[in-house]
Amino acid sequence: MRRILALAEGRFSPLKSKTANGAIVYLPNEVVAVVDSTKAGKTAQEVLGYGGNIPVVASLEEGFAFHPTDLLIGIAPTGGRLPEVWREWIKTAMRNKLNILSGLHTILSDDEELVQIAKENNVTITDWRKVPIEYEVVSKGNYRTRRAKTILTVGADCNIGKMTTMLEVYKVFRKRGLNSDFIGTGQTGIMISGKGIAVDAIISDYIAGSIEKCIDSSNAEGYDYIFVEGQGALTHQGYSGVTLGLMHGTMPDAMIMCVQPTRTHDDYGLPIPDLNRLIRLHEEVINIFRPTKVVGIGINSVGLTDEQSKVEAKKIEDNTGLPAIDAFRFGGEKLADALIQYLGRK
Amino acid sequence: MRRILALAEGRFSPLKSKTANGAIVYLPNEVVAVVDSTKAGKTAQEVLGYGGNIPVVASLEEGFAFHPTDLLIGIAPTGGRLPEVWREWIKTAMRNKLNILSGLHTILSDDEELVQIAKENNVTITDWRKVPIEYEVVSKGNYRTRRAKTILTVGADCNIGKMTTMLEVYKVFRKRGLNSDFIGTGQTGIMISGKGIAVDAIISDYIAGSIEKCIDSSNAEGYDYIFVEGQGALTHQGYSGVTLGLMHGTMPDAMIMCVQPTRTHDDYGLPIPDLNRLIRLHEEVINIFRPTKVVGIGINSVGLTDEQSKVEAKKIEDNTGLPAIDAFRFGGEKLADALIQYLGRK
Repeated sequence: MRRILALAEGRFSPLKSKTANGAIVYLPNEVVAVVDSTKAGKTAQEVLGYGGNIPVVASLEEGFAFHPTDLLIGIAPTGGRLPEVWREWIKTAMRNKLNILSGLHTILSDDEELVQIAKENNVTITDWRKVPIEYEVVSKGNYRTRRAKTILTVGADCNIGKMTTMLEVYKVFRKRGLNSDFIGTGQTGIMISGKGIAVDAIISDYIAGSIEKCIDSSNAEGYDYIFVEGQGALTHQGYSGVTLGLMHGTMPDAMIMCVQPTRTHDDYGLPIPDLNRLIRLHEEVINIFRPTKVVGIGINSVGLTDEQSKVEAKKIEDNTGLPAIDAFRFGGEKLADALIQYLGRK
Repeated sequence: MRRILALAEGRFSPLKSKTANGAIVYLPNEVVAVVDSTKAGKTAQEVLGYGGNIPVVASLEEGFAFHPTDLLIGIAPTGGRLPEVWREWIKTAMRNKLNILSGLHTILSDDEELVQIAKENNVTITDWRKVPIEYEVVSKGNYRTRRAKTILTVGADCNIGKMTTMLEVYKVFRKRGLNSDFIGTGQTGIMISGKGIAVDAIISDYIAGSIEKCIDSSNAEGYDYIFVEGQGALTHQGYSGVTLGLMHGTMPDAMIMCVQPTRTHDDYGLPIPDLNRLIRLHEEVINIFRPTKVVGIGINSVGLTDEQSKVEAKKIEDNTGLPAIDAFRFGGEKLADALIQYLGRK
């Protein structure tokens, strides 16, 4: 069993350590400790509101006491370049026989010094953002002969709960004995599932082809339901191309739309579009090729009470005629029911 | 003045030497000869139906007699890898003091041997598919403060006349004294205009940002109208992500839709969608952000007579209510008129 030490120095918090937090929620048996000297002595539960007794420690060396096998880079550096001190931590971890797990844009396994140290210590460096060359393929349109059903989350904006919603629904499918797979499309999703592709890091000609190849593998393994983690947003000025390529590589049988009721404007200061208009647009870009529908709404109710979240869900249900719920807070059952009903009907 | 020797060995023809042909049409004063031993002795006009007296020669050496300054790789290798014999040709050309112009996926300027030979001979290697690192930027949403009007071609499929239509309309704008710029987004368009970015070769997070950066430069230079070459198709399973990223990086004030009346199915064997539905979809993905319209239809009437082309144009005009014409055959005036009328009205 992998034992993960999650590096989140200076940033361990609900919003600033997304990858570490994803590991804590979805790989709770693997994370043995979190490194953040500013929060040392607390537990994950105390810092995040979830994560139970996973301890926060002050240094790598304190973390080594928990016998980790892997160091997870659980935060992204400000400015995008790898800070010198992180580099030293990574080297120290490898010299202490820890594998490195990284979703950084800086590809660690392209760094000669780091590769040399990994070799000397017989440890591995995993770069989730490094796309293997065999995924640089143009889509073939294989959805036409695929046996499995594919389900994709889409959203009204970036960073709105697409991965989390998908994972919660996927968990329900598994619990119900449905033969289901999950394909990650960003570093956290890939870390959790152990499979997938960083679609935002691939050359643009290959967006659809790379995810299609992942789905083809999963289909060949015999899964009945393939859940694909959504990325970006069709209505996000910066990343819409990634999203549409992912949508057309997946050609989903069904979609879940993710929204945050309290978010009125996106990163660009642009208003979040009308929800029914968004749903129609997402359906139309697939319907040009094949039938599909948005069958439920995943709500991100950060900052709301449970009661407020339910009120918002009710409003959205009345507005769209679709089931709506915060699956992270209340579980994925309602959305799973909607999917099963819809996919069973097809 | 650049004097181009266009390499099209074994492939010089209307359909198999796209980059060479683009140079012949749009840089007629620069192309001094075409190398294709299978067509040697003919003229471009005889092979393509255009291009006048540009001669086809049997070998590089015969081409050198025309005192070229640049060797243009005018075809793509089958299978994508650079054939050994082409490599020898490129080396021979550089040793004869020719610069190399390439739109290949294989980046020649990353090849140590070729770079060394270029250095020894004081010649340059231009790789249009190599995206400079400064274009790896996320879009900022600058369309909101842009002064210039942007015009983008979109299409019912790939390889349907988006670049050609745009260039014809751009030529009319220039002829009328309108202060207009043209930005290429594929190797041929970049070659012709001397500016632009290969959007299909950029990392997917940066599609919109890279083209926005090109437009920002052009806007800063004071152009009133910026024509952006379209790529792919919103309804093309493989490349739709590139197309949407390009659309959102451009955020066009107006679009021209390109169609080929005789084409009923795309590369994937999928039917070309209904034209009015296509127009609505293209408008909607921009209208989510800002007003825009498809204001005219560019027709690719390859294989049709002039008379048949006009009949098809009339049918499309009746069906869509928009002006339609084969601008390559009959000139860009009609579409230019439609653009000026629409952009003037805004």
